[in-house]
Amino acid sequence: MLTPYECRCGRSYAPAADRWRCDCGGLLDLPLAAVAWPPRAGTSSIWRYLDAGDLPWREITLGEGGTPLVEEDGGLHLKVEFASPTGSFKDRGAVVLVALARALGAARLIADSSGNAGTAVAAYAARAGVAAEIFVPAGTSEKKLLQIRGHGAEVTVVEGSREDTAAAAVARVEQSGAFYASHVYNPYFHEGTKTYALEIFEQLGGAVPATLVLPAGNGTLVLGAHRGFAELRAAALIDRVPRIVAVQAERCAPLAAAWAAGLDEPGPVRPGRTLAEGIAIADPARGSRILAAVRDTGGAFVTVGEDEIAAASAALAARGLWVEPTGAVSYAAVRRLRGAESPLLTGGPVVAPLCGSGLKASL
Amino acid sequence: MLTPYECRCGRSYAPAADRWRCDCGGLLDLPLAAVAWPPRAGTSSIWRYLDAGDLPWREITLGEGGTPLVEEDGGLHLKVEFASPTGSFKDRGAVVLVALARALGAARLIADSSGNAGTAVAAYAARAGVAAEIFVPAGTSEKKLLQIRGHGAEVTVVEGSREDTAAAAVARVEQSGAFYASHVYNPYFHEGTKTYALEIFEQLGGAVPATLVLPAGNGTLVLGAHRGFAELRAAALIDRVPRIVAVQAERCAPLAAAWAAGLDEPGPVRPGRTLAEGIAIADPARGSRILAAVRDTGGAFVTVGEDEIAAASAALAARGLWVEPTGAVSYAAVRRLRGAESPLLTGGPVVAPLCGSGLKASL
Ligand SMILES: Cc1ncc(COP(=O)(O)O)c(C=O)c1O
Ligand SMILES: Cc1ncc(COP(=O)(O)O)c(C=O)c1O
Ligand SMILES: [Zn+2]
Ligand SMILES: [Zn+2]
Repeated sequence: MLTPYECRCGRSYAPAADRWRCDCGGLLDLPLAAVAWPPRAGTSSIWRYLDAGDLPWREITLGEGGTPLVEEDGGLHLKVEFASPTGSFKDRGAVVLVALARALGAARLIADSSGNAGTAVAAYAARAGVAAEIFVPAGTSEKKLLQIRGHGAEVTVVEGSREDTAAAAVARVEQSGAFYASHVYNPYFHEGTKTYALEIFEQLGGAVPATLVLPAGNGTLVLGAHRGFAELRAAALIDRVPRIVAVQAERCAPLAAAWAAGLDEPGPVRPGRTLAEGIAIADPARGSRILAAVRDTGGAFVTVGEDEIAAASAALAARGLWVEPTGAVSYAAVRRLRGAESPLLTGGPVVAPLCGSGLKASL
Repeated sequence: MLTPYECRCGRSYAPAADRWRCDCGGLLDLPLAAVAWPPRAGTSSIWRYLDAGDLPWREITLGEGGTPLVEEDGGLHLKVEFASPTGSFKDRGAVVLVALARALGAARLIADSSGNAGTAVAAYAARAGVAAEIFVPAGTSEKKLLQIRGHGAEVTVVEGSREDTAAAAVARVEQSGAFYASHVYNPYFHEGTKTYALEIFEQLGGAVPATLVLPAGNGTLVLGAHRGFAELRAAALIDRVPRIVAVQAERCAPLAAAWAAGLDEPGPVRPGRTLAEGIAIADPARGSRILAAVRDTGGAFVTVGEDEIAAASAALAARGLWVEPTGAVSYAAVRRLRGAESPLLTGGPVVAPLCGSGLKASL
């Protein structure tokens, strides 16, 4: 039995292949559960932490998760999320979505992303034998298109912005009845990304970090990590959720702007071009939830500039770690906060992810 | 105490920063030991399997190893070696060599490789704070040079072949006294790659595969995997070593040619251009040892053609696995042997590695 979707309007829905938002137009969520612990022995992927229910994950998994937690000086731990089957943390969410699509009998799925989420969904869809169509904005690099097509997915290039791309995908979803494998709309994606938190808890031997520094675009990692620690708390395995410091690029920072203004909901911004293309989301659909999650933890938003992103990339490379620019933003924020001797980094271990591989950057 | 190097002439040497071959000119080896089992609890990198002795690995590790073992149909398991910190299995050997360099007090190291070994050594050298100089042949892609330099290594481009590149590196080693971080000459590299075998043994719950299908260029994975299973046998944890099927590209197959001719030692070949550039080694220094290892296991050599490599890459992508061409050769061999209903694949699980990430391929 799959957990039903819930909307804040009070409606709930059993998962179905063609259900991706509420009839009221609202976002779907999943209720918070208490985590089952200890993890399933003998399974070394993210599935060791999940109550997989009816999901056919064994045929689909690529062994995602189990990424290294590498210790740096001053109590900082870097989580090497780029050492994942498709080179980013999106594998955690994508494998769950694709398993769900298969469980619901979907023969076809649709996703929109020019980046890591699209590649991850295409890879797992290939493995699951579900036909995939990936919508990408014009200008997406040849390298990425080659890979998405290599996984057998159909690519539809949309002239216009990311928002136009999403709109085109939604139109096709509505017209075709295909499963919408959206990392933004489908809350099962966060069931995957919550394993980021559970893994850290296990890797630290049951200690709780004082602070998680996390990149935030659409917030799949922020919301997933928050959920993971909240479910550990619900199971009384821990008594507090680490503070979450969410990081945006100065040039595209709708959430940080809303936070600074004390708002509960972001307004859309006009994005500038940033090296951190993976988090350049001008109008994040789950914005109010991301703001609420950060607030719940006593955390904060931080922005980083282009020079700081470039300097953080270089500093990581000098430590043997090769990341794409978006993969360096959390480390850039750590450096900025350290420079400012911020209390946000005090009180215990600090964990920051390196979300995407430097091998992904074009060239 | 580090294990001394041994030469077949009878000499032995305590490891020292400037020692990389015997005074007689011979290759250095390490004696076979019985593996210590079970692995060290609470460590999740390759270091859980190694008696690290004096090696300062904790400051250098990137959490290498622990790669997924993914099950395909017909008893085939694919080991996702490309989900490694630098994107290839070479991390297993490189981290050991660099830790050794540091333990021996080397301030500077030299390596020669245009590919995955060079990148891995550069990354770990950066982390260890050991200055690195990497010799590469002219024509090495910009992307690779950017990464090697990004890790702070000096790049020396050599006009000529791979052999010329190695000769230039050796000349610099001899003149400078720097540590030669050679995956070919330094047998500590195989201490790292032997963890490939130990991990498989653990992941299969103590079962021994019937067959390992392994790419062979300089044989670091063949020799390491053989050593790993031989050390399990020496500890009486298993009673036989899996047969090793070693794979070369048709266009550059000195070992397969020697095997077919019943020779104990390969002769150099004139290499053709192959997609599998990572194993295009015309004159492998450890050739006789590679032939002997395969023979010891009741295995064989197999060659694969360019079309088979390309088809294997495509078939892997259609299963969600994105590899560089060299990373597909072991799977190409599995496909060929299956097509021929070869007895080499019978008798139990077959394990093949996917050694390098598709994100490494240029574009
Ligand atoms: C490398 C990288 N880091 C961080 C993110 C941010 O994730 P999210 O948009 O879910 O907040 C992404 C999203 O694509 C990414 O690719
Ligand atoms: C992807 C890949 N596979 C296989 C090999 C073969 O390793 P070896 O030359 O040690 O046999 C290499 C070597 O660089 C490689 O890069
Ligand atoms: Zn509703
Ligand atoms: Zn000798």
